[in-house]
Amino acid sequence: MGEKLVVNGVFVLGVSLMLLGSLSLGLGAKTRHFKWDVEYIHWSPDCSSNSSEGIVMAINGQFPGPTIVARAGDTINVELTNKLFTEGVVIHWHGIRQIGTPWADGTASISQCAINPGETFVYRFILDKAGTYFYHGHYGMQRSAGLYGSLIVNVAEGEKEPFRYDGEFNLLLSDWWHQSVHEQEVGLSSKPLRWIGEPQSILINGRGQYSCSLAAQYSNSSVEQCKFSGTEQCAPQVLRVLPTKTYRIRLASTTALASLNFAIGGHKIVVVEADGNYVQPFAVPDIDIYSGESYSVLLIADQNPKENYWVSLSVRGRLPKTPQALTVLNYITNHASKVPSTPPPVAPLWNNYTHSKAFSNKIFALIGSQKPPILARRRISLLNTQNKINDYTKWAINNISLVLPSTPYLGSIKYGLTHNSLDYKQPPETFPIDYDIMVPAKNPNATHGSGVYTFRQNHVIDIVLQNSNALKANESEIHPWHLHGHDFWVLGYGEGRFDERNVKDLNLKNPPLRNTAVIYPYGWTVLRFVADNPGVWAFHCHIEPHLHMGMGVIFAIDVHKVGNVPRQALACGLTANMFFENKP
Amino acid sequence: MGEKLVVNGVFVLGVSLMLLGSLSLGLGAKTRHFKWDVEYIHWSPDCSSNSSEGIVMAINGQFPGPTIVARAGDTINVELTNKLFTEGVVIHWHGIRQIGTPWADGTASISQCAINPGETFVYRFILDKAGTYFYHGHYGMQRSAGLYGSLIVNVAEGEKEPFRYDGEFNLLLSDWWHQSVHEQEVGLSSKPLRWIGEPQSILINGRGQYSCSLAAQYSNSSVEQCKFSGTEQCAPQVLRVLPTKTYRIRLASTTALASLNFAIGGHKIVVVEADGNYVQPFAVPDIDIYSGESYSVLLIADQNPKENYWVSLSVRGRLPKTPQALTVLNYITNHASKVPSTPPPVAPLWNNYTHSKAFSNKIFALIGSQKPPILARRRISLLNTQNKINDYTKWAINNISLVLPSTPYLGSIKYGLTHNSLDYKQPPETFPIDYDIMVPAKNPNATHGSGVYTFRQNHVIDIVLQNSNALKANESEIHPWHLHGHDFWVLGYGEGRFDERNVKDLNLKNPPLRNTAVIYPYGWTVLRFVADNPGVWAFHCHIEPHLHMGMGVIFAIDVHKVGNVPRQALACGLTANMFFENKP
Repeated sequence: MGEKLVVNGVFVLGVSLMLLGSLSLGLGAKTRHFKWDVEYIHWSPDCSSNSSEGIVMAINGQFPGPTIVARAGDTINVELTNKLFTEGVVIHWHGIRQIGTPWADGTASISQCAINPGETFVYRFILDKAGTYFYHGHYGMQRSAGLYGSLIVNVAEGEKEPFRYDGEFNLLLSDWWHQSVHEQEVGLSSKPLRWIGEPQSILINGRGQYSCSLAAQYSNSSVEQCKFSGTEQCAPQVLRVLPTKTYRIRLASTTALASLNFAIGGHKIVVVEADGNYVQPFAVPDIDIYSGESYSVLLIADQNPKENYWVSLSVRGRLPKTPQALTVLNYITNHASKVPSTPPPVAPLWNNYTHSKAFSNKIFALIGSQKPPILARRRISLLNTQNKINDYTKWAINNISLVLPSTPYLGSIKYGLTHNSLDYKQPPETFPIDYDIMVPAKNPNATHGSGVYTFRQNHVIDIVLQNSNALKANESEIHPWHLHGHDFWVLGYGEGRFDERNVKDLNLKNPPLRNTAVIYPYGWTVLRFVADNPGVWAFHCHIEPHLHMGMGVIFAIDVHKVGNVPRQALACGLTANMFFENKP
Repeated sequence: MGEKLVVNGVFVLGVSLMLLGSLSLGLGAKTRHFKWDVEYIHWSPDCSSNSSEGIVMAINGQFPGPTIVARAGDTINVELTNKLFTEGVVIHWHGIRQIGTPWADGTASISQCAINPGETFVYRFILDKAGTYFYHGHYGMQRSAGLYGSLIVNVAEGEKEPFRYDGEFNLLLSDWWHQSVHEQEVGLSSKPLRWIGEPQSILINGRGQYSCSLAAQYSNSSVEQCKFSGTEQCAPQVLRVLPTKTYRIRLASTTALASLNFAIGGHKIVVVEADGNYVQPFAVPDIDIYSGESYSVLLIADQNPKENYWVSLSVRGRLPKTPQALTVLNYITNHASKVPSTPPPVAPLWNNYTHSKAFSNKIFALIGSQKPPILARRRISLLNTQNKINDYTKWAINNISLVLPSTPYLGSIKYGLTHNSLDYKQPPETFPIDYDIMVPAKNPNATHGSGVYTFRQNHVIDIVLQNSNALKANESEIHPWHLHGHDFWVLGYGEGRFDERNVKDLNLKNPPLRNTAVIYPYGWTVLRFVADNPGVWAFHCHIEPHLHMGMGVIFAIDVHKVGNVPRQALACGLTANMFFENKP
């Protein structure tokens, strides 16, 4: 109890603290080149064991992967070489719309063939707007294996953010299991299901503490106080601030499962950005952040500068079995090792959804933002259910559990190739009117499918995401849905089954633009988007094991307008065959 | 100690006991069709943990994979579907020469592109001769992950073996680690090297006992007596024999590392086949078997039929840290659970190479077998060294550590594509005359390479495999070298450095034909083969981590004569690009 947290300068490496407004690096957008090798490295993100055990998927030997910092309008050119031994790999640039470059979206079986070991694929795309983004693996459960990193897009040269700050921090949030991803995948595909359970640790910039606590003296448990020299793989990064200054904290969640609540002891925060879009600023004591979401919050270092304060992340939406993740807000000139004088923030109860919904309902687009079209051309209602199919536990959308084909859609649709015409029929646009969302799914005809919803370019589409009871009575889970290639407006949330009477309550005035939106237990969420980006795009629950269990759908938009797909994106399955058949 | 081994009928399932000579299934060769899915399953081959932990690579849900039983001249047609989530896969048919079908040899980066997840590749090839074979993964370390099974080729209809027996058993031998193969691979590729260590268990037909012993009452340690109901994944298969009858025991070793000694308490065995070739029968109390080798031995059940006897496998050639693997030779009508009345066989000391060499030197071709050509056209001397390259620990052959290219050789050579002309130059045919094999490698210019030895069809090639000291003083390891696409004659073994004076002692009269031959510590082995099979073939140390560390070479034989390579074998890397460039 008397032990002190030893923190030194090493801890703050990696948390970028940038003073803006003083730099002028030149005019116009530029192309930023990166050469990345993906490989496994020995690493223990939460120091649960010595680093001779446990591996993570790393980029250029770094976990998390390198942070990209660029400006809106820049072109990113990543030459990605697969240095794994037997596994393919892809990288998805989460939140980047890939306007005109659908083959660079980095989704295996959807936008491209996985990159084979030893091969290099070039991801080249334009950063269409400023914001807080990240990148991650999108093949099997390679995101859970550690393949992720931050992608920070500042405003274009000469542009200004609609808020001011003196410095910034970037916190990429993730969760970590001690069981290997390969074992997790097998368990999820087993009969009966072997669920992965709750994560052992929550990581902040790839660092968590499993067998010790930074705040042991405030804990009732017998957990030991952490003693770090600063060189440990799991030593926390401390946020160092000058009194009275304002900081932008970028938060992005690439968790496999965990919904999180972020708070800073003694401080309020002001939300200014969500998923790369400005929101009307509002102050809160804490925020919920779901997998696939990102936020920028402003923090004013306006508290007693003689003290340090806790930065905490707590599990929400599931009975928490994972310790709160902590780091320290360190007022310069205190020593970083000075332990805060009060206990870490207490998060709302895990199932206090009233708190979560209140937060969601505070998010509006910044005044002056683009409004959604008044009318949608088509509405697709997607019922989320947990099902048994041949005794395997699956998630299904309108009774269909997604199975990705071995030939990526982008190539097979563009070239008119199909395994089976049935696969590509339009899946159901809605679900039975008498489906009772309050009880476990009875639908015995749930099935697997690889179907595609097809849209014409620029059509306006409404999506009603409808939650329901899971297989166990009185259980309904949170699902954060993420759309590729587009942002959508979140028109509203509601309880129970969505109904025509709810339409009048939808917000067409100032709904926020997002790329990820949650459905709450037993609730619905309505989204609107303009299908303006030709390509094939995933829309799925961002909880990685849920996607693995089939929780997603595929949207295709005027694929005939897509040109110049790089050959490597097509070098598998039926598209490869097609080129072979045309051999001279 | 008073506990009894409980054995029931379940134990003998899977050990095939076939009475020959009584069946006549039709005339001529046939095509045998198989549909196989490769996937991970939860499995614990040595019951080290409950089966909710640990995974193995299985075929159609079976570990080891299904046993193929066929006849010489038959065609095998395996439709192999990759049901892994992110890993490619191939299967090598070990000992089958693939005459005219080099693309079916199942070596990733050499004979074909790895099969992508979700895709199916058809292995279709002829079983050119009778013998005891097996199949296994040949990509990364997927063999260690459990991807293997038996391939038993009986003589053609109407033909007879040159020995008689009343029944047969098939024992596929392997070794097992508790660390995942993915972690092993990372450790082997790390700087400094993290060696995988000795296996936790030796498996007989995929079954070993880690936390108990079948012979605890004979052990000095505190290990517990095994208590099996028979349904356990690690329950041993018992060999049930009738007194006075003669049995053929087929042995094949697909170990990743371990060299083994096989013995049956109280019985002599007669060796009649090695690697699918008949040998002049000889009796021994025990035999050494190295990874990649197979034998048939005859056992006469001529001992006291009131007793049962131990069947044992012990580690040779490395300081043993792995318990002896055991099962029981059960004389019918004893109960299978009757514990043998004497302790298990005691193997020769691990480093008693005199014993090993005496066995090797007893193996001669069956009288009347084909003799080797009198003269060789070319001799290639291959120095085996352990090296440091940029501080990574590697194995090198004539100073070059093999790195496999991402485009398989068969396609890139056939179509005249190369990454880099340097890669495809002929590697050195010999090594410096003054190289001192008795001390650690000094050669600081060891390097990586993907070079190829090129042969004209039907040229006669001699290979001198030269062992040497490893990186540690006074250490030289055993390496079993395996050749693809061909058998070779083993002309002789010797001590120290091979010298022209040794030529006169080589055996040209009745050397055995093999596909795998060992080099002993500080020794040499001379092989001769006729390069009669156009294609690209691996020749490598069959210890999987050694191959992973570069211990192999590549032979190309008149590749321009190879036709009709299946398109899927070419659908990666430069060969895929070539077809894309020729697109209409």
